[in-house]
Amino acid sequence: MTGAGSAARVPSGGTGRRPTLAVVGATGAVGTVLLGILSQRADVWGEVRLVASARSAGRKLIVRGAETEVVALSEEAFEGVDVAMFDVPDEVAAQWAPVAVAKGAVVVDNSGAFRMDPDVPLVVPEVNAHAARVRPRGIISNPNCTTLSMIVAMGALHAEFGLSELIVASYQAASGAGQAGVATLRAQLAAVAGTDLGEKPGDVRRAVGDDLGPFPAPLALNVVPWAGSPREAGWSSEELKVRDESRKILGLPELRVSATCVRVPVLTTHSLAVHARFENEVTVEQAHEILANAPGVVLVDDPGEGEFPTPADAVGTDPTWVGRVRRSLDDPNALELFVCGDNLRKGAALNTAQIAEVVAAELTAP
Amino acid sequence: MTGAGSAARVPSGGTGRRPTLAVVGATGAVGTVLLGILSQRADVWGEVRLVASARSAGRKLIVRGAETEVVALSEEAFEGVDVAMFDVPDEVAAQWAPVAVAKGAVVVDNSGAFRMDPDVPLVVPEVNAHAARVRPRGIISNPNCTTLSMIVAMGALHAEFGLSELIVASYQAASGAGQAGVATLRAQLAAVAGTDLGEKPGDVRRAVGDDLGPFPAPLALNVVPWAGSPREAGWSSEELKVRDESRKILGLPELRVSATCVRVPVLTTHSLAVHARFENEVTVEQAHEILANAPGVVLVDDPGEGEFPTPADAVGTDPTWVGRVRRSLDDPNALELFVCGDNLRKGAALNTAQIAEVVAAELTAP
Repeated sequence: MTGAGSAARVPSGGTGRRPTLAVVGATGAVGTVLLGILSQRADVWGEVRLVASARSAGRKLIVRGAETEVVALSEEAFEGVDVAMFDVPDEVAAQWAPVAVAKGAVVVDNSGAFRMDPDVPLVVPEVNAHAARVRPRGIISNPNCTTLSMIVAMGALHAEFGLSELIVASYQAASGAGQAGVATLRAQLAAVAGTDLGEKPGDVRRAVGDDLGPFPAPLALNVVPWAGSPREAGWSSEELKVRDESRKILGLPELRVSATCVRVPVLTTHSLAVHARFENEVTVEQAHEILANAPGVVLVDDPGEGEFPTPADAVGTDPTWVGRVRRSLDDPNALELFVCGDNLRKGAALNTAQIAEVVAAELTAP
Repeated sequence: MTGAGSAARVPSGGTGRRPTLAVVGATGAVGTVLLGILSQRADVWGEVRLVASARSAGRKLIVRGAETEVVALSEEAFEGVDVAMFDVPDEVAAQWAPVAVAKGAVVVDNSGAFRMDPDVPLVVPEVNAHAARVRPRGIISNPNCTTLSMIVAMGALHAEFGLSELIVASYQAASGAGQAGVATLRAQLAAVAGTDLGEKPGDVRRAVGDDLGPFPAPLALNVVPWAGSPREAGWSSEELKVRDESRKILGLPELRVSATCVRVPVLTTHSLAVHARFENEVTVEQAHEILANAPGVVLVDDPGEGEFPTPADAVGTDPTWVGRVRRSLDDPNALELFVCGDNLRKGAALNTAQIAEVVAAELTAP
């Protein structure tokens, strides 16, 4: 029964025992947001166990209003766990997710370690919740934050018009690179604010100094057209994730996807400019109606009145914000859109929590 | 001879009299950069007369090392002027450019007033210098800064591969909205730097207050998917300029163009993520060779070594910086590129100066 996770242990028939949840990586940027989300959503969990590196063990964090002590990552930490959420680096997830599964847990993993494994479903509940039920390795992957920032909206449009091509340019926030990204941007902003720097070649570089944190160039007063690590033919890992993951989530293995991923001096919330081409002709009116009614999407589209999505407005909220919907002037099958999604919430912690809740409902169903 | 500008007055045959230049709007954001550029480039001008609104008349500015008094905009200000550069709002240019032409000047105008007039050429010297010679109204238009930030590179690739489609997303700097844009971003950065703001909904809005300057939303710690004014079907004027002007400069009236224009918290230098589709198959190697040899272009493309264009590096320089060149994985005829260009230099003042120099060479040719 390893492959099906802990289904054998949870009493069926609706006896009311609530599943035990482990949060692995509870002290990280995403983990911190996840604890807040667990306190806000309808509570389907019994015990919530907080797990982190040995360095963080013993810290006490608040979850669901109760102070909870962090335990060190170990085989024993998964004893009795029904669902384990992982928000840790790829190599940690690759090592420990199978350990959790062997102890009987279903793993919901937010790393890149398993996303493209054909035996691991990649799930966005608004788009392909059904895929979460088929998990031969006992693992369900949560998509990359950049893909997640647009895919709920694109899934809704695809269901109506049939998606054939995506060309996207991203405006990615510092927190996509973790707490180090946030700290780096804050320090750089403090170094340049109140100066007259920023309009001569190299003066931002000189002001922020050599410590660029997780970024390959200064981020304050700048944009950096690189995220992730180098892949073949000039592509970045982040750009290929957008392509591979969009194809897998939408079930469109031949979807044409080109992404350019760019970091911008925003703390949290990724934005994307999307050119989406469909099999069928589209209209702005139809697109507005679909997006206005799509679960998990908020349509904000009256630019003449200042109504469009921005990170400053979307940050801290759950939905994908969509606006600037236009039909291509040269192609009746193509739409332009601008989307914003909180990369720590829907882009990571919220979608992980939603997947875990889908599993919890399955485990406790009569 | 009005239509041909001052050709009748400038002695032909290479007698050596240098043409008189007027700079209209000398005290603005672009005008200030223009005066610096006039001091740096090979000096082809006789008198340089500085013209601005009556409010600025009497101010003394340095040009070519000499203190020069600003005179008020009037018909008399164009007396004896051979070439007049205009960097003023559209309505001022619409009123005064014909006055300058009537006084015998060739006008090089950086406003949007005449760009799409079929009797006014729209010129980027590296791409279509020949067009500057045919100017039935005596006016030559300088393109919009966003178009200019990519068009030199796209012109070079078009000459080899035949451009058929452009899909672009911009990362536009605050100074594209003038000195008020720069002042607004600096004030907003000072308000948020050193705080813990930026990760809760609305807290950037509260911190920067009601004075958003020329922008429809806060720009610090944010991106704003709107530039210009509303046009039909949800498009902004800035987005339609990219389409209309690219078509006119490249001489491709049927070119498919979709642009999404977004303001980012950068002071100066616009960037664009460009998806360019061609009539013919492309390779990254060929594109690299073309771009490395194109006048006015610098190729910076080794992202694994941290080599890609950013605004912090391109600001204050003349060329268009190009990097992140990739061939679409799903379309052998398409390239992805990331380009940066200083919106006040090549995006405005430098291109204006280059056009004026083309005219000066024509006026003084033997």
